[in-house]
Amino acid sequence: MAPRPDHTSLFAHRSEEFRPSPVRAVFEIAMRPGIISLAGGNPDMSVLPHDVVAAMSARILAERGPEVLQYGSGAGIGRLPGLVVELMRLQGAETTPDTIQITAGSQAGLDLVTKLFCDPGDVVVAEGPTYVGALGVFGSYEVEVAHVDVDDDGLDPEAVAGRIDGLRAAGRSVKFVYTIPNFHNPTGVTLTEERRRRLVEVCADRGVLILEDDPYALLGFDRAHRLPSLYSLDPGTVIHLGSFSKIFSPGLRVGWIAAAPAVRARLQIAAEAVTIHPSVLGQELAAEYVASEHWRPALDRAVDLYRARCAAMMTALERFMPEGVRWTRPAGGFFTWLDLDPALDHGDLLGRAIGHGVVLVPGGACYADGRASTSLRLAYSAASPEDITEGVRRVGEMLRD
Amino acid sequence: MAPRPDHTSLFAHRSEEFRPSPVRAVFEIAMRPGIISLAGGNPDMSVLPHDVVAAMSARILAERGPEVLQYGSGAGIGRLPGLVVELMRLQGAETTPDTIQITAGSQAGLDLVTKLFCDPGDVVVAEGPTYVGALGVFGSYEVEVAHVDVDDDGLDPEAVAGRIDGLRAAGRSVKFVYTIPNFHNPTGVTLTEERRRRLVEVCADRGVLILEDDPYALLGFDRAHRLPSLYSLDPGTVIHLGSFSKIFSPGLRVGWIAAAPAVRARLQIAAEAVTIHPSVLGQELAAEYVASEHWRPALDRAVDLYRARCAAMMTALERFMPEGVRWTRPAGGFFTWLDLDPALDHGDLLGRAIGHGVVLVPGGACYADGRASTSLRLAYSAASPEDITEGVRRVGEMLRD
Repeated sequence: MAPRPDHTSLFAHRSEEFRPSPVRAVFEIAMRPGIISLAGGNPDMSVLPHDVVAAMSARILAERGPEVLQYGSGAGIGRLPGLVVELMRLQGAETTPDTIQITAGSQAGLDLVTKLFCDPGDVVVAEGPTYVGALGVFGSYEVEVAHVDVDDDGLDPEAVAGRIDGLRAAGRSVKFVYTIPNFHNPTGVTLTEERRRRLVEVCADRGVLILEDDPYALLGFDRAHRLPSLYSLDPGTVIHLGSFSKIFSPGLRVGWIAAAPAVRARLQIAAEAVTIHPSVLGQELAAEYVASEHWRPALDRAVDLYRARCAAMMTALERFMPEGVRWTRPAGGFFTWLDLDPALDHGDLLGRAIGHGVVLVPGGACYADGRASTSLRLAYSAASPEDITEGVRRVGEMLRD
Repeated sequence: MAPRPDHTSLFAHRSEEFRPSPVRAVFEIAMRPGIISLAGGNPDMSVLPHDVVAAMSARILAERGPEVLQYGSGAGIGRLPGLVVELMRLQGAETTPDTIQITAGSQAGLDLVTKLFCDPGDVVVAEGPTYVGALGVFGSYEVEVAHVDVDDDGLDPEAVAGRIDGLRAAGRSVKFVYTIPNFHNPTGVTLTEERRRRLVEVCADRGVLILEDDPYALLGFDRAHRLPSLYSLDPGTVIHLGSFSKIFSPGLRVGWIAAAPAVRARLQIAAEAVTIHPSVLGQELAAEYVASEHWRPALDRAVDLYRARCAAMMTALERFMPEGVRWTRPAGGFFTWLDLDPALDHGDLLGRAIGHGVVLVPGGACYADGRASTSLRLAYSAASPEDITEGVRRVGEMLRD
């Protein structure tokens, strides 16, 4: 008789990527009393008209319960793609509903695009550093990440071109450039308009797609100034990921992909194999809320909060950071990024921060190679100005230790 | 200058599996006026107390909106694993909350388990025929499906043993046996208790897992008679998939996996990379509803409906089927399966059925090799007894043509 099955010995090769990351622990630690969290990129939910949302939900279920609680369409509920087209118009992108695939959040969109395009061993070019959750996706499909450093203006298109050419010369298959052009997670920087135009050119010339992850598009501090999305510059080269998480609610898990119709159709089939369809109630609620007169004022209130919190963080950084620390000055979104003195050994940044009563995301978590941290991400989106000031003071204290 | 990117030429190898299936078209055709659908396995939503559900949703959002609309935990909302443990107790399985991973529906559970365990080229043993949606998942991970025929008592454990041994002798890696033991989709048959005990033995002896997909567990027509889940017989060998779709609502997309804690932890990390977490509102609503006094009576009403509809279908089959057609006699669930006269050429069963004003699932869709249809699935869950009678009459007419 053979031994009883040892589940873990049966795991697939990709399971190596499903390991607890040091960042996961952060969010539990952040709940401890006395700890100030500058870690999580949570939107502020206090700005929402909760009684209005509750009434919308009740009306949807009372009037159309049998339909809303039943299985839905894999493409999304009927009215949502049209509404997304209007949202994308606010970002300067003209498109049509047949390009829109509704997803169970933007993370699911990232998963599906990677699943559809990437074989094991393929390479994705991404900002260095990049979104932690994207590294989880790329790892789960055994895709290699080639980082290109960002500066205060985002990705350098010539560096991207050089990287793609170099990888190809080495026989590697580069499927797409993954980028967050607006108020980048984790660095907070924004790709300039000139670089946007050049980046799509560089990629189009090389037959490489761009995967534009744009959850913060409408969270710019200066409402009068909005840069064109990469998708709006060249929808033939760009697949766009959008999300209701930062403009309404992350808990409902509703987002979208904008892609050429032939790609969208395949993404739908891939999506149906994973979740059949996103929550119908979540989609109905997102559609109803964003189409209502409540949406825009609440979003404006949220952006006002983020602007004030960012200002509080900038002031505190000026006041409390030791010599040799540089940080980014975001024009929107949730994050700033600190480059520490590389000549010093910063040790376990997260552990040390917790010792000082503050949590943050150590920079190493945002690189595929998990390099040693001489950088860190601070989020200002979900903390009060007072907590931000005290939290940054603690970070300064830790860095001086 | 290289040509502009041709998206489809960049697709991954697995994209071959993301092709429209003939069954997808069925559900749009089913909406045409005059067509009777015996195709979709939809639960009946008319039995739900919709005003109660609407009020629950409003209360959850009004009282805890900032928490429910915010990001949630990747493990699921706090109270749900404990509630799932109680549901599993109704199925005779004793387990603990640390074995429960909440998923964005049971389909997502199937996707995650396959993703965690299966490398391309691995083999999954499954009923022949099996759930169409499972074939989509296995295909998307380039996993081969080895069918073992079912009879009126479900899978034959000795045939499964022989199949596993044969595959191994041929150098193949068999990761798990995928089975739907209760009121099987698509055949409607139920695995006998004796075979359940032997199946877990056969798999445990060989170090092969069982993936038990059990969405219909509580939909037996005879409430006094419930067979033990495979999980309850040997939780060390079995991973269990459960769902709120058939006992409450499929539209909310909430289900669960029960697995050894070390496996559950990895599944959570894999799940977070795909969707971060299932809809918090969906989970809250499922928890509140199933814990309420409304749940059990509505489920009883639903089962009464399904029992009556199944009886109507059995009567109609007796009356309208030509010689040489055999069908299963379900003890619960949504489906019956017809084996047609294999000596005849049945052609395009779906196309012919539509010509007769009825839609159904052609049997070939339920095999990984897409074999020619000499069988078909009829669902009685979502049609009135009158429509069932008329629909079956049309199927009979078609088969006589």
